[in-house]
Amino acid sequence: MSDFLSHIKSVAREFETHLDAALPKPQGATARVAEAMRYSALGGGKRLRPFFVVETARLFGHEDEGVWLAASALECVHVYSLIHDDLPCMDDDDMRRGKATVHRAFDEATAVLAGDGLLTLAFELLTREAVHADANVRLNLIAKLAMASGHAGMIGGQMIDLTMGLGGGTREVSEAVITQLQDLKTGALIHYAVMAGAMLGGANAHEKAHLSAYARHIGLIFQITDDLLDVTGSADIMGKAAGKDEQRGKATFVSILGIDGARRKAQTLANEAHGHLDGFGQKADALRSAIDFVLKRDN
Amino acid sequence: MSDFLSHIKSVAREFETHLDAALPKPQGATARVAEAMRYSALGGGKRLRPFFVVETARLFGHEDEGVWLAASALECVHVYSLIHDDLPCMDDDDMRRGKATVHRAFDEATAVLAGDGLLTLAFELLTREAVHADANVRLNLIAKLAMASGHAGMIGGQMIDLTMGLGGGTREVSEAVITQLQDLKTGALIHYAVMAGAMLGGANAHEKAHLSAYARHIGLIFQITDDLLDVTGSADIMGKAAGKDEQRGKATFVSILGIDGARRKAQTLANEAHGHLDGFGQKADALRSAIDFVLKRDN
Repeated sequence: MSDFLSHIKSVAREFETHLDAALPKPQGATARVAEAMRYSALGGGKRLRPFFVVETARLFGHEDEGVWLAASALECVHVYSLIHDDLPCMDDDDMRRGKATVHRAFDEATAVLAGDGLLTLAFELLTREAVHADANVRLNLIAKLAMASGHAGMIGGQMIDLTMGLGGGTREVSEAVITQLQDLKTGALIHYAVMAGAMLGGANAHEKAHLSAYARHIGLIFQITDDLLDVTGSADIMGKAAGKDEQRGKATFVSILGIDGARRKAQTLANEAHGHLDGFGQKADALRSAIDFVLKRDN
Repeated sequence: MSDFLSHIKSVAREFETHLDAALPKPQGATARVAEAMRYSALGGGKRLRPFFVVETARLFGHEDEGVWLAASALECVHVYSLIHDDLPCMDDDDMRRGKATVHRAFDEATAVLAGDGLLTLAFELLTREAVHADANVRLNLIAKLAMASGHAGMIGGQMIDLTMGLGGGTREVSEAVITQLQDLKTGALIHYAVMAGAMLGGANAHEKAHLSAYARHIGLIFQITDDLLDVTGSADIMGKAAGKDEQRGKATFVSILGIDGARRKAQTLANEAHGHLDGFGQKADALRSAIDFVLKRDN
């Protein structure tokens, strides 16, 4: 496991040099929005989504500048969603990854614009020829990213989350609804990460089917552990507040299945995720270790 | 002029059937965000940007589903920018096009998400094969839209606008800075509208150069008349509050050049814009009338 930790950290470090280059340099009268974009995007984090892009592409022996660009685009979308999610009118969070959220460090208007800027930049990055020589692969990456992050994907998940908060109460919400919510809110981008790697690597339909199932399982495990951490985790380790779901009366996997039930569910999903990697041999070891990493993470 | 009015209205009506089809239908648990997207996007307006896309493509005899899709994508970006701009942390506007702004009709969080959803949808629309048979034209449309609307375009303009508001006072701001601000904030998307039509229509470099200059002039005229309307206009006709710039101490073309000076500047730009259409013959009559329409608009 410690080998894997150092591996994911080394991928994250390499990724950050590419992300840094992809972000705008603050200059002139518009400097403030570029500063806020950099502040949030270069603010650390596990870089899990970039990791999945890169490691899935490596399954097919594919690794070039385009993989890092696609990973940067995806991370821009992830970071924008965090900035907007942290806003006072959304989750109203002051801390993220151990430092002040963007609207706290800058101001609300700048946070809105920085999020908008990162989302827009993501699509611009994917148009670049260096992403992939085949224009249709680039268009497919753009279309899939828009769908994963749009009203029928991540944004839809955030909407369900908010609507449940407005309606209040955990009692009427079934495991099926929570699964749908998380599949959209968190799962869609993790799924995209794996599928972007598969698209760039040139996976065939059979390989894509298994990788897609793997990614869906990873997304669910990720969310279950997120819910578990909110109950059992430490704010120090997580770099953000704990116990917020319960305070807000939010339905989570833990509120529905209990702590033990949620843990069992995550373990079952992990076993199935391993099964979907069976056909990929040793090359898939990094993706295998990632299952246990997501299952056992403490932040 | 009344011929032109009925022409632009008829283009707007036809455009709205296409935009309607491009927007998500509210359904299931995510319905609320789709409703907010439709509420704002189908809320009327002159549809000036779609008009420029369509009429510029027509210069080259080009008119198909792809033109309407590109116009829809652009309008989604325009509408998203209005939703976010109206938020309490930005301009804090209650009314837009004669009805409640999205955060008033729904709530702030839904307004943030609806804006995000429209921006994301814009890029998805442009990936569709119906936009243009050539994948590289679609990628070019996406890249240019991202640049026109991103941190170095519209968002950058909004950032300058906000930063000036934070700094306060109109005195230190020169005409050059106001021109840069407006070129980014308003001009970039109007410029894109014309250039999208030119790209779809297959304009050559010489034609693109003239259309680009025409579009830059239109954008500036548009902003000057906007500033004039804020001083001289009626809230009833405009469907939004008047006199807000002065209340906020915002630097505008009017605060710098005076009412007469701003009018003269707009007229000079209009004359130059006409000059850039000289080589296009009768086919450019709609774009010619648009100059006077933007120059003399009362809302």
